Amino acid sequence: MALALAGGVGGAKLALGLAGILPPDRLAIVVNTGDDEQFHGLHVSPDLDTMAYTLAGLYNQETGWGLAGDTFQTLGMLHRLGADTWFNLGDIDFAMHIRRTELLREGATLSEATAELTGRLGIKHRIIPMSDDPVRTMLDTDAGLLAMQDYFVRRRAEPRVSAVRYAGAETARPAPGFAEALRQADTIIICPSNPYLSVAPIMAIPGVREAIEARRADCIAVSPIVGGAAVRGPAGKIMAELGGEVSVVGVAREYRSICAALVIDAQDAGRADDVAAAGVRPIIADTIMNTDADKIGLAERVLRLAAAEVTTA
Amino acid sequence: MALALAGGVGGAKLALGLAGILPPDRLAIVVNTGDDEQFHGLHVSPDLDTMAYTLAGLYNQETGWGLAGDTFQTLGMLHRLGADTWFNLGDIDFAMHIRRTELLREGATLSEATAELTGRLGIKHRIIPMSDDPVRTMLDTDAGLLAMQDYFVRRRAEPRVSAVRYAGAETARPAPGFAEALRQADTIIICPSNPYLSVAPIMAIPGVREAIEARRADCIAVSPIVGGAAVRGPAGKIMAELGGEVSVVGVAREYRSICAALVIDAQDAGRADDVAAAGVRPIIADTIMNTDADKIGLAERVLRLAAAEVTTA
Repeated sequence: MALALAGGVGGAKLALGLAGILPPDRLAIVVNTGDDEQFHGLHVSPDLDTMAYTLAGLYNQETGWGLAGDTFQTLGMLHRLGADTWFNLGDIDFAMHIRRTELLREGATLSEATAELTGRLGIKHRIIPMSDDPVRTMLDTDAGLLAMQDYFVRRRAEPRVSAVRYAGAETARPAPGFAEALRQADTIIICPSNPYLSVAPIMAIPGVREAIEARRADCIAVSPIVGGAAVRGPAGKIMAELGGEVSVVGVAREYRSICAALVIDAQDAGRADDVAAAGVRPIIADTIMNTDADKIGLAERVLRLAAAEVTTA
Repeated sequence: MALALAGGVGGAKLALGLAGILPPDRLAIVVNTGDDEQFHGLHVSPDLDTMAYTLAGLYNQETGWGLAGDTFQTLGMLHRLGADTWFNLGDIDFAMHIRRTELLREGATLSEATAELTGRLGIKHRIIPMSDDPVRTMLDTDAGLLAMQDYFVRRRAEPRVSAVRYAGAETARPAPGFAEALRQADTIIICPSNPYLSVAPIMAIPGVREAIEARRADCIAVSPIVGGAAVRGPAGKIMAELGGEVSVVGVAREYRSICAALVIDAQDAGRADDVAAAGVRPIIADTIMNTDADKIGLAERVLRLAAAEVTTA
């Protein structure tokens, strides 16, 4: 069984590829919930929804968030009613947040609500929140301490980051499905997601980093940094601000305690030796996923690599 | 100052007329909240919203509910997500319920939330819920005890009604603005709304019926029954099922303890003597309000009548 750890768009792309190859009982997809936020009294889980919309074929590839064909009537009226509407939420999207909030208020855990919502969307694979307990990614910046969406969406990732914290992580537990997948997985895949804002929140849950470090030989990451910049989002900017090297080598240093291999893009082939010197086995592949064939191709490569790792272990 | 008591569409039409004549400080509009219901975890106040949409010029005259130009993307997705979606809620409409629910959860009273929402819609006149406490109109029917929306919308008012109850009314208090208006009003107008489902819930709040009975000479009702049938909705059907006469005379009997005069439609002129015999002064007018001019016209007639009443009292 494979366990994929993912955050936003890049992670969802690789997860779609993995789900196209592995049957539902052989893949568990654990998703960052450190970005979760209350908007208009509703529980919004951006990464869970990006994953759900991607796997259900509903994702809006043009905007990079939300659902294809969505409209914004509800948000327009909320603005008129005096609500803060800097976070874009479409009419169809609102239904997810309304229903999730209702299920949570009725006593469901976030895992249970996610299973119900994704099942209704026809998704057969398990999408599991990293925790049913609230963990909130907070950024120390030159504009003060900011929650993730405030930093990323409202302020367009412009403030300079000096530290990232995961509020609530110290008392959070892995969601039951995550704990089970950690025990059962023979392969762990760290999807190309933001190391600080998507992967680190998952690692911050007590016991998770230790469990993955203990399985390091079975863990493969895909670099979200290609050609010295993030494929998408603020990972490169934050990496530089935190004093790291914005490159696959920086990613290798970030992940070396948790994974034995790092898939790097062909355009970073020249840094393979440096990745190896950082203590992580470099694997060169085409990692830019534009088409579904790209996603399946990279997923196949990662899974073959994992099988080889297991074989040679 | 005038105090108008109203329920749904008919009440909102007359209130629009009254608001076209009286400045905001001379009119208080108190609205039934016995129809309020939780849908998808959101607080929906159908009569408050019908009033707000009507006064803001947003009301959908074609469907008879909701907002003009509204769409149904959120509801469609909620259906897909397994929610019960028999109660129609549009995308723009959802914003009202989302924002109201958020304000209530933050500690606002329903009065405060209503003032905030209606103010944001540019409504200058006070729209006041009958109570900030929950009152729920429940119908004893041959299909069991039904909440108002279940009876009216889901079951299309088809079950036979044997009694109407107002759950929670015994411990409810009039909203502060309603209590103040009851003290200050020199005219009380009962709009053409359902006597059992719109007006009676207001009267069921302790102290309200007594206060209005004490002001009976200043209270004028407009009949929601015209030509032996309700202009709109199930008022006639319920009236018959409860053993009343479906006519302006039946309305006069229903209201005789609370109002001195009843405006009846010209087509009911032949029943004027019977209305008088029931103990209520009949006033003949054109009460069908199709155009805004109709609404202003009827409102003017009612207000002139009220002034005359006060003069001759």
